[in-house]
Amino acid sequence: MLINSAVYDDGRMVAEPGLDGVSEALEARQTGFVWIALRDPTDDELHLLQHELNLPALAVEDARKGHQRPKVEEYGDMLFAAMHLLEGGPDGELQVGEVHVFVGARFIVSVRHRSDQGFLGVRGRAEREPDLLRQGPGFVFYALMDAVVDRYFPLMDAIEAELEQLEETMFRPHQDRQAVVQRLFGLKQRLATLRHAVTPLLEVSAKLHGGRVPVVCKALQDYFRDVYDHLLRIQASIDAARETIIAATQVNLTLVTIDESLVTKRLAAWAAIFAASTALAGIWGMNFEKMPELKWEFGYPMALGAIVLVSSALYWRFKHLKWL
Amino acid sequence: MLINSAVYDDGRMVAEPGLDGVSEALEARQTGFVWIALRDPTDDELHLLQHELNLPALAVEDARKGHQRPKVEEYGDMLFAAMHLLEGGPDGELQVGEVHVFVGARFIVSVRHRSDQGFLGVRGRAEREPDLLRQGPGFVFYALMDAVVDRYFPLMDAIEAELEQLEETMFRPHQDRQAVVQRLFGLKQRLATLRHAVTPLLEVSAKLHGGRVPVVCKALQDYFRDVYDHLLRIQASIDAARETIIAATQVNLTLVTIDESLVTKRLAAWAAIFAASTALAGIWGMNFEKMPELKWEFGYPMALGAIVLVSSALYWRFKHLKWL
Amino acid sequence: MLINSAVYDDGRMVAEPGLDGVSEALEARQTGFVWIALRDPTDDELHLLQHELNLPALAVEDARKGHQRPKVEEYGDMLFAAMHLLEGGPDGELQVGEVHVFVGARFIVSVRHRSDQGFLGVRGRAEREPDLLRQGPGFVFYALMDAVVDRYFPLMDAIEAELEQLEETMFRPHQDRQAVVQRLFGLKQRLATLRHAVTPLLEVSAKLHGGRVPVVCKALQDYFRDVYDHLLRIQASIDAARETIIAATQVNLTLVTIDESLVTKRLAAWAAIFAASTALAGIWGMNFEKMPELKWEFGYPMALGAIVLVSSALYWRFKHLKWL
Amino acid sequence: MLINSAVYDDGRMVAEPGLDGVSEALEARQTGFVWIALRDPTDDELHLLQHELNLPALAVEDARKGHQRPKVEEYGDMLFAAMHLLEGGPDGELQVGEVHVFVGARFIVSVRHRSDQGFLGVRGRAEREPDLLRQGPGFVFYALMDAVVDRYFPLMDAIEAELEQLEETMFRPHQDRQAVVQRLFGLKQRLATLRHAVTPLLEVSAKLHGGRVPVVCKALQDYFRDVYDHLLRIQASIDAARETIIAATQVNLTLVTIDESLVTKRLAAWAAIFAASTALAGIWGMNFEKMPELKWEFGYPMALGAIVLVSSALYWRFKHLKWL
Amino acid sequence: MLINSAVYDDGRMVAEPGLDGVSEALEARQTGFVWIALRDPTDDELHLLQHELNLPALAVEDARKGHQRPKVEEYGDMLFAAMHLLEGGPDGELQVGEVHVFVGARFIVSVRHRSDQGFLGVRGRAEREPDLLRQGPGFVFYALMDAVVDRYFPLMDAIEAELEQLEETMFRPHQDRQAVVQRLFGLKQRLATLRHAVTPLLEVSAKLHGGRVPVVCKALQDYFRDVYDHLLRIQASIDAARETIIAATQVNLTLVTIDESLVTKRLAAWAAIFAASTALAGIWGMNFEKMPELKWEFGYPMALGAIVLVSSALYWRFKHLKWL
Repeated sequence: MLINSAVYDDGRMVAEPGLDGVSEALEARQTGFVWIALRDPTDDELHLLQHELNLPALAVEDARKGHQRPKVEEYGDMLFAAMHLLEGGPDGELQVGEVHVFVGARFIVSVRHRSDQGFLGVRGRAEREPDLLRQGPGFVFYALMDAVVDRYFPLMDAIEAELEQLEETMFRPHQDRQAVVQRLFGLKQRLATLRHAVTPLLEVSAKLHGGRVPVVCKALQDYFRDVYDHLLRIQASIDAARETIIAATQVNLTLVTIDESLVTKRLAAWAAIFAASTALAGIWGMNFEKMPELKWEFGYPMALGAIVLVSSALYWRFKHLKWL
Repeated sequence: MLINSAVYDDGRMVAEPGLDGVSEALEARQTGFVWIALRDPTDDELHLLQHELNLPALAVEDARKGHQRPKVEEYGDMLFAAMHLLEGGPDGELQVGEVHVFVGARFIVSVRHRSDQGFLGVRGRAEREPDLLRQGPGFVFYALMDAVVDRYFPLMDAIEAELEQLEETMFRPHQDRQAVVQRLFGLKQRLATLRHAVTPLLEVSAKLHGGRVPVVCKALQDYFRDVYDHLLRIQASIDAARETIIAATQVNLTLVTIDESLVTKRLAAWAAIFAASTALAGIWGMNFEKMPELKWEFGYPMALGAIVLVSSALYWRFKHLKWL
Repeated sequence: MLINSAVYDDGRMVAEPGLDGVSEALEARQTGFVWIALRDPTDDELHLLQHELNLPALAVEDARKGHQRPKVEEYGDMLFAAMHLLEGGPDGELQVGEVHVFVGARFIVSVRHRSDQGFLGVRGRAEREPDLLRQGPGFVFYALMDAVVDRYFPLMDAIEAELEQLEETMFRPHQDRQAVVQRLFGLKQRLATLRHAVTPLLEVSAKLHGGRVPVVCKALQDYFRDVYDHLLRIQASIDAARETIIAATQVNLTLVTIDESLVTKRLAAWAAIFAASTALAGIWGMNFEKMPELKWEFGYPMALGAIVLVSSALYWRFKHLKWL
Repeated sequence: MLINSAVYDDGRMVAEPGLDGVSEALEARQTGFVWIALRDPTDDELHLLQHELNLPALAVEDARKGHQRPKVEEYGDMLFAAMHLLEGGPDGELQVGEVHVFVGARFIVSVRHRSDQGFLGVRGRAEREPDLLRQGPGFVFYALMDAVVDRYFPLMDAIEAELEQLEETMFRPHQDRQAVVQRLFGLKQRLATLRHAVTPLLEVSAKLHGGRVPVVCKALQDYFRDVYDHLLRIQASIDAARETIIAATQVNLTLVTIDESLVTKRLAAWAAIFAASTALAGIWGMNFEKMPELKWEFGYPMALGAIVLVSSALYWRFKHLKWL
Repeated sequence: MLINSAVYDDGRMVAEPGLDGVSEALEARQTGFVWIALRDPTDDELHLLQHELNLPALAVEDARKGHQRPKVEEYGDMLFAAMHLLEGGPDGELQVGEVHVFVGARFIVSVRHRSDQGFLGVRGRAEREPDLLRQGPGFVFYALMDAVVDRYFPLMDAIEAELEQLEETMFRPHQDRQAVVQRLFGLKQRLATLRHAVTPLLEVSAKLHGGRVPVVCKALQDYFRDVYDHLLRIQASIDAARETIIAATQVNLTLVTIDESLVTKRLAAWAAIFAASTALAGIWGMNFEKMPELKWEFGYPMALGAIVLVSSALYWRFKHLKWL
């Protein structure tokens, strides 16, 4: 589906050609570039675009099939980039969409898959600041990348907040340990999703601001270094969170074992108390003919007293040992 | 066993020489190349081929013995490649076959071992598109490699699907924990098999599209980068699945310990209930002469009532504590 | 908030311009530099400064937003550095503040965030030693960095001391294992905070004394190598402490399991002692008509003796086995 | 002890000088080289050889002391190599011997320590193929290295076979878990021994076929690449086996815990069954005067029936829950 | 404290100046060098030396403060090295001392801290072999380094011996598991201390024999490669021991759990035996009027027989199951 198609020259929009008028619109003027946004495009739309802008077949094939890992590939002077769009689902799980970007000397095409996150904000900001737009497709590419990366931060923040809450409650008594381990596992999975969006992008974005930089990004190295720095920051947070989760999972196992130990202690304590009572009662239930205390006036209360006494003594003993 | 032997020139098949006519067939024309496919070849067939095409002895020895790790070796202008062919067995285990490929300026030889997966599809596609075939043995090499790698995807998908199912059921109550740990272990083994096919190939395929590229692959760098990208994608999936398995195994241990803890609690609870009843019955079973309640009209029902009362009280107490 | 703003020439302070007089003050003389210190600055202050000193927009944006990872970035001849300021909170947790430093040929600006740790000591020392100050903004940058890094040492020492104490007490009997695991986890978190301050700084400071060194640090390579060496030392301590914590956590799990094992043994032992008594009492409580010992003169004491004997025998047996 | 000392020229043996005639024998002809094999040599033998062939003192010192890690060192044009000779002992443990090799332009010396594995096969093969021998000491060095590395394969195969057997039996019921963990630990130790033979050799052999290759190995790069490839294959097997062992050890811990859980369940079940019987018997053993059922004609059989009934009901209940 | 101060020329000692006569003594002759040994020096001694030999301030500061990590730093033509001196304390813990070495074209200064290990042996050996001493301060530096590193071997051997003993006893029955885990933890700590002495030294010593070698070590590359090789060997042993400790710790946890499992089984078995006896006795203790066996002549012995029979049957059953 075509979302938008606009030709910009000298920072202002000058035409809105359809997909099939793109090459004409570009040839009509010496300068300027076209900015096209597609969403879940049909094969026809992609083929038309490939023809109009002379896009490389392998890259178009990637964009058609989707499910790419984040990457930036050079095809001659053109760049093809794939990035993950992440959205927090209702159950906390992260939904993975994608955006593919073709960047040429006179065009930029973004193809969005399986995601509701649009880039209207990016277009709006770009149109409000003609100075920036004047820098061409490379700047738009940066702006898109920046927007994608900025959306990772709140997801990371949510993970960190949940993790911090878990850390705090974990050591409190009477926790549902299974729920803790389940939430930790869920966090780990979300973190993995985030990492698979961030880490490959980090690697490729490193090549956009240092060493041999692709020609369309040449003048914008400081901007791409800024994106790189943001990714590095998320990466550091991911690593930290991951370590915390690993440690917390292990700690949780220890806590589970400690819990079990406590239960075993209580079991042992109560078993001992009842067993002592039963043994005493059993003794006075024996049928020997000569058991003088059986004939005492206060034999029975005395026996009951003895049983209570022993039970209480054991109870206090175990209380003192913290077994109860 | 010889599967196929055909000479292609200008994109069309022009001859089908036997193994012993290969060098003649090539000398008979200035251009074109021969494409030979063998399966579990005899030593004689390999020696004949070595002689006809002047293949390097060490590489032929590798192809004869099999059980190579994935690799691409240069012998002068010739390439020798080994790749793993994986097939899902009936019990989910992966069967490992191999294909060895010799690529020269005017020939390509594929030698398949211990695998039913043929490359007829590759040949068919190549013959239908003479344009591509015109690019020579390098293109056929790419097509074979692409076919091998594409067959890894469904295997990876199957692993991911089973893993996802395990993740979902793992936290449900009353799971057979041993079955879970056994399936996780099985998945880990399959993943290891896949990894040993993918990782070395990833390393060597990196050298086919960047830096000093072997001469037969020179014109096809974008294609090999595409294969490399596919391998990178599987590699990322493998890494993710591996982490998940490790985490799930650890989580499972915690769940087992929690399960045990629950059983211990139930044991403790029921032991307490019965022990209390027994202790009470023991008390009224004592033989003291003066135990007034023994003579009461409703002493017995009262005793039974007391026992039921205490047992019920304990039962509800434990129910409340979630021990039962 | 402006803390300080002073122009130094030839090692001595020559002027104290406000933020809006900085560029004028610099232009008024051929040599010398200005040293400005800000704390939790307003946006206005930062914009004014950006204008006066022609600071790069992206770096100022970073300084405004804060929450940067430690880094050193070059913008042309200028350096922008971010470092973490760590303070031990009352509960042992580390509070993370930041200082951002802009270093140019003729200025150095430090911007402190969320931290009470000032750099008056640095300024005092610098003013007392005009020789050093004469070396310009690069030296001040070194002095700030050195001060930041030196403050990491006592934090690391505190962690090591607590860890050592834990190691010693861990193997003593009757430890509160949950407290141990909780303290270990807390130490791990503090260590992670420290590591996230140190590791990135280590990476960047490596670039300040070897290879292509930024121009403002050129003459001071030995000094920056010294800072680097300090960071390396903390890093080594961090790694060692981290390994110890991991090992101690695992050891603690084993100790918990051993503890549980001991409790189970005691439970088993006491259960056996009481069960034997109860079984004996039960036997003599049977109602058979012909049980000669029931009629013996000393049958009852004998029975009690038997019970005591069996219990004692079991008690000594278990004592010997170390179950009790 | 001198095993062998022979001068080869043009692929044929031409003399068998003693240790003290080596230099003379070499000077007597323009071409050819001497091949000396020693086993557990005395200091005198080594010093004599050092003098005759002008071997570097540090290398001779290494050969004298033994217990070297695998390595290849260059001393000018000479190479000194140390490799581990592994032999499976009766109890499965690997015995570590060593062979040290000095390779010069006109000599090759092998010094074997603490191992019964000779290199007669290598010498035999070399003498049968004069073509190869004509290539000089470099070829002999390759042949020795190849022989050493080839002997690692059956050791690795044995480890893999035992591991596979463990994997299969591990999940079967009623395993002796301690035996499993002990065998896994033993495999891990053997694997470590193998790895310490292979990994350093892999590193150094990489330098014998690529980059700046020592002069005596120059013409034989394809051969050394083959050895390297073999080592890479073992290395991959080692890594795979190691991962499997780690996973299996962890799985075994989980299985142990599951086993324990099962035992606890059985304990709980039987305890409940007996406790219920005892409680019922205790109730009918109370001494209340009015317990009508005690006087019934079939009171006793009824009571027994009730006890059997309750026990059976519990038994079937637990059977159903898989606790028994 | 000054231990020694001697000027050597042409391999022989020619003067023994005090600290304040060093520069004079050097200027008095064209060649030769001074070798100074200090132990726990005062600040005055260090300052005097710094002045006499023109030592760099930062390096002297390091030597004064101590607690450096192992390193080799270049200051122009001078080298500053720090190495750890390890001594086994009475309780097995390793005491960490330090030696700092300043190496210049005409001097070598060793400064020892917190250690009783002197270098008299090194001096003695050097003086006995004037040939070596003639090579200047670089050779003395090598000799000191060699002596330091050689002292690591017996420490490593002690760790390995203790570890081997633990491995052997670990699987034997009735081990004190807590003692095992405590000793493993102690070994791990000692190993960490050793590693922190070895690993950084390994890194820096690599730079003393390959690539751009400092000028004072130039002629001695083979010697420094030898030291490097020794360090590599210890490093390999450390890695191996570390892996073994990790594996053994994990194995120990499994063994603890198995132990616990065995105890639970014994508990279960004995509980069942006594519970069965008690249940039987309880049945014959019921007060039904019509219990014919109570009146039998041999009812009581029969009952006792039944109880013994059931108990024995259970006992043998459990014996057979290996629960007892």
